[in-house]
Amino acid sequence: MQNIPPQVQALLGQLESYQQQLQLVIQQKQKVQVDLNDAKKALEEIEKVEENTPIYKTVGTLIVKISKDKAVEELKEKIETLEVRLNALNRQEQKLNEKIKELTQKIQSMLRPTAG
Amino acid sequence: MQNIPPQVQALLGQLESYQQQLQLVIQQKQKVQVDLNDAKKALEEIEKVEENTPIYKTVGTLIVKISKDKAVEELKEKIETLEVRLNALNRQEQKLNEKIKELTQKIQSMLRPTAG
Amino acid sequence: MQNIPPQVQALLGQLESYQQQLQLVIQQKQKVQVDLNDAKKALEEIEKVEENTPIYKTVGTLIVKISKDKAVEELKEKIETLEVRLNALNRQEQKLNEKIKELTQKIQSMLRPTAG
Amino acid sequence: MQNIPPQVQALLGQLESYQQQLQLVIQQKQKVQVDLNDAKKALEEIEKVEENTPIYKTVGTLIVKISKDKAVEELKEKIETLEVRLNALNRQEQKLNEKIKELTQKIQSMLRPTAG
Repeated sequence: MQNIPPQVQALLGQLESYQQQLQLVIQQKQKVQVDLNDAKKALEEIEKVEENTPIYKTVGTLIVKISKDKAVEELKEKIETLEVRLNALNRQEQKLNEKIKELTQKIQSMLRPTAG
Repeated sequence: MQNIPPQVQALLGQLESYQQQLQLVIQQKQKVQVDLNDAKKALEEIEKVEENTPIYKTVGTLIVKISKDKAVEELKEKIETLEVRLNALNRQEQKLNEKIKELTQKIQSMLRPTAG
Repeated sequence: MQNIPPQVQALLGQLESYQQQLQLVIQQKQKVQVDLNDAKKALEEIEKVEENTPIYKTVGTLIVKISKDKAVEELKEKIETLEVRLNALNRQEQKLNEKIKELTQKIQSMLRPTAG
Repeated sequence: MQNIPPQVQALLGQLESYQQQLQLVIQQKQKVQVDLNDAKKALEEIEKVEENTPIYKTVGTLIVKISKDKAVEELKEKIETLEVRLNALNRQEQKLNEKIKELTQKIQSMLRPTAG
């Protein structure tokens, strides 16, 4: 780092911070995506069961009887919430990728040997 | 570390130990906080179900029928226990923060160049 | 690495990549093996229960009543899927082991001092 | 390590290996101890429930009805198995501690400067 001007070092620090934020967003996206797939598969499976099939839901360490209609309704709400969250994370990812691209270009131009 | 007097080195070791203890307390607090929120959400949800809704509780890998009253009672006890534990951890955190602050000031004063 | 010819360095990089892939395959195999054993034990246990024993299955965070016949059928399908997956992973493991053996021999022959 | 005779280096390697084995045994003991406590607490709780309380057991991702008597019997068997395992791990731990003590003494005596 000795030969890198202080200005560029500051930008490199900022770049690293954006990359860490991006990693975090990507991890969160993966988790939401898994939860979303699980919820969609569960909905598909619940919708197929006969109308009077006993269904329970887990509430922490408790298990409580629930009607099929209520189970379907709650799953749909969960899916909607997860989709909203996934969209927000996608937007964050895109913005971070843009910032990283811009910053990388800026750093490269500052490190490029100038004519003269 | 070569230029740091042995006395200060000992205090730095102690400071590090306090900081590790603080990290542990903060981790435990986060876990208790999560468990507490889960228990509160579960209580809220159980209190809403109709009186004769079948409810079960998990006991290790077993699942046992329980009355709504008993479920509510057990959740309230759990919440109380977790709140007592959270308060104890908050007190530990505060004490450790105070010790760290005092020790940091002591170390700084010992490292400050004395007049003359 | 200074005295290692660039060609050999490239092969060492490839070797490391194969070894990482092998580690991943071994980890996946262990997971599938555990899931397979669990499914086989569950099947054995379910087949033993009396015909009219109430059985439920977990669907995400929901729990849904299922007949013994359906439970047995689903477990058998799961076991079959896991066995297919395990066989595919075994083939991948074998191929990677062969590639690693070949590459190791190639690298050794390139590093061997030649006569003359 | 430059000034340490090869014989002692070999023993240090063996010592490290025993210490790693000990760490593993201690980790396994902790897991078994947790499982044992969980099983004992579950037994205590199941024994208290009224005779005709519906009880289920988890079998992989399935949940199957079980009588109180069978649940108690299975828990007792599980506790016995875990206690046998815990005793075996305790014996392993003791033997490793003895080996480590002996080896440490041997290494110390070999590193002690001899008269003359």
